[in-house]
Amino acid sequence: MPFELTILGSSSAIPTSEKYPTAQVLNVHERFFLIDCGEGTQIQMRRLKFKLARFNHIFISHLHGDHYFGLVGLISTLSLLGNKNDIHIYAHSEIKTLIKGQLEFMKSEMAFAIIFHPLNFKKPQILLEDEQITVTSFPVKHSIPTCGFLFEEKQKLPNIKKELIEKYQIPIKNIQVIKEGANFSTENSETIKHSDLTTPPKEPRSYAFCTDTAYYEPVINIVKNVNLLYHESTFQNNKKELAEKTMHSTAQQAATIAKKANVKKLLIGHFSNRYKKPEGFLKEAKSVFPETFLATEGKTFKIK
Amino acid sequence: MPFELTILGSSSAIPTSEKYPTAQVLNVHERFFLIDCGEGTQIQMRRLKFKLARFNHIFISHLHGDHYFGLVGLISTLSLLGNKNDIHIYAHSEIKTLIKGQLEFMKSEMAFAIIFHPLNFKKPQILLEDEQITVTSFPVKHSIPTCGFLFEEKQKLPNIKKELIEKYQIPIKNIQVIKEGANFSTENSETIKHSDLTTPPKEPRSYAFCTDTAYYEPVINIVKNVNLLYHESTFQNNKKELAEKTMHSTAQQAATIAKKANVKKLLIGHFSNRYKKPEGFLKEAKSVFPETFLATEGKTFKIK
Repeated sequence: MPFELTILGSSSAIPTSEKYPTAQVLNVHERFFLIDCGEGTQIQMRRLKFKLARFNHIFISHLHGDHYFGLVGLISTLSLLGNKNDIHIYAHSEIKTLIKGQLEFMKSEMAFAIIFHPLNFKKPQILLEDEQITVTSFPVKHSIPTCGFLFEEKQKLPNIKKELIEKYQIPIKNIQVIKEGANFSTENSETIKHSDLTTPPKEPRSYAFCTDTAYYEPVINIVKNVNLLYHESTFQNNKKELAEKTMHSTAQQAATIAKKANVKKLLIGHFSNRYKKPEGFLKEAKSVFPETFLATEGKTFKIK
Repeated sequence: MPFELTILGSSSAIPTSEKYPTAQVLNVHERFFLIDCGEGTQIQMRRLKFKLARFNHIFISHLHGDHYFGLVGLISTLSLLGNKNDIHIYAHSEIKTLIKGQLEFMKSEMAFAIIFHPLNFKKPQILLEDEQITVTSFPVKHSIPTCGFLFEEKQKLPNIKKELIEKYQIPIKNIQVIKEGANFSTENSETIKHSDLTTPPKEPRSYAFCTDTAYYEPVINIVKNVNLLYHESTFQNNKKELAEKTMHSTAQQAATIAKKANVKKLLIGHFSNRYKKPEGFLKEAKSVFPETFLATEGKTFKIK
């Protein structure tokens, strides 16, 4: 089952001729989550062959335009395409006011509801949970209320060894309880231990999105050990003061969070346009955390 | 002095992976006018090397999203770039309500004013007039109130023949009155006629933008003899009923307007995505009006 992240945009503040503002797609078992939605997101979704109708959950980290100006256009297109599925938007409650006028204008022709879920900017909050995944928001530190998002696969039960089902004639009704931890007694009253009957399940995978934020150590615990961490990196170390002032991070700071949180892989993005090429960011981050990659448009990062 | 139109986008309703929604730039003597502003307009402006700070006048034909969803992003970017020039927006008065929430959010950091000029959907109305140009809006026929725009260079005065200024020793103070039609009396009381002293001025150039509209003959008089006419052409003749129902035009209808208005050149665009290639539109229009061209992204049409 796939667990993969695709970068639609990673520009900071202003789109350029090559870079789109922030937007990412996380594919978890063929369920598609949209994370932030800057202007042009729907264009990038089409370009990268995503089916717009597959998106029902949209997570907006904060209300700076480069993270949500594409939302109204996406909703309008979904409406024009005849979408009938409700759309869940996880964002600051204020978003309703901001896009109210435009939504009202479209409403009469929309065959679906938009359900707003307000974010909590004081503490982590579970936004969505089912058998496969948990999505949690967590506050970061920016000039306006801002959340990151953590996507975690659920821990699966161990797998029962198929050849032993046959060998010990295990009835179907026992399989679930064995998976959940029980031993098995054969007809000859022989006890086969749970640990001998099963193989451990695959490690659950996880992705954390640390959008616009100053260097903020409280996130370390939250993103601890994730397979993939995106952490904004608007500046390089030579503009550390500016990063602090604008409540953004440097590449070195992003890498420091990654290192302290013991994540497996780090993506950096949201680079300021003052830097012409992203190589400087990569070099700076890699000197602290070697497993760093650039979150550039169109790239997909698969977690096996 | 240039008089040229650049197409930023010409998709209908929904942007695709290759086509942006409607937006055009008209350059009149190095003054830049933005006509409609679909999502991603600012991205296209950058791609095509337009300087965003040069745009102070934005004309929005109507409030369907594919004609204005890029406006808020453009304003936000102008603000982030430190623009200080007021922005004039010519649009349905309702636009203020639609984007109010988003503008309020940005306002504290904006160093310029946004001045809204409501369009008149009952009759033609001069929106802007100075020594060089007149911009007039005119109603077309669509499912919501919609205007087209006519951009006309002012008729220049005749040019005085330089060699005759010397020959007859014409004082500087007389030049303007001669240009305006006066004859000239030499010291020997010889009268030199205005028509001998001057060469006719260049013909004023004009561009008309007929955005989303059903076939609507009242526009013929308004766009009569323009050098360049853009007329929407969402459908081909095989979908004439659908065109009528949705209040759009076919390629044949666009060409018929061009022919009846005796324009010099026709551009067609806003093609429905149901047609995979635009050649069918061109063929259909050319059969009525041979001087037809496709309004495709990135193309510039210069009027000499």
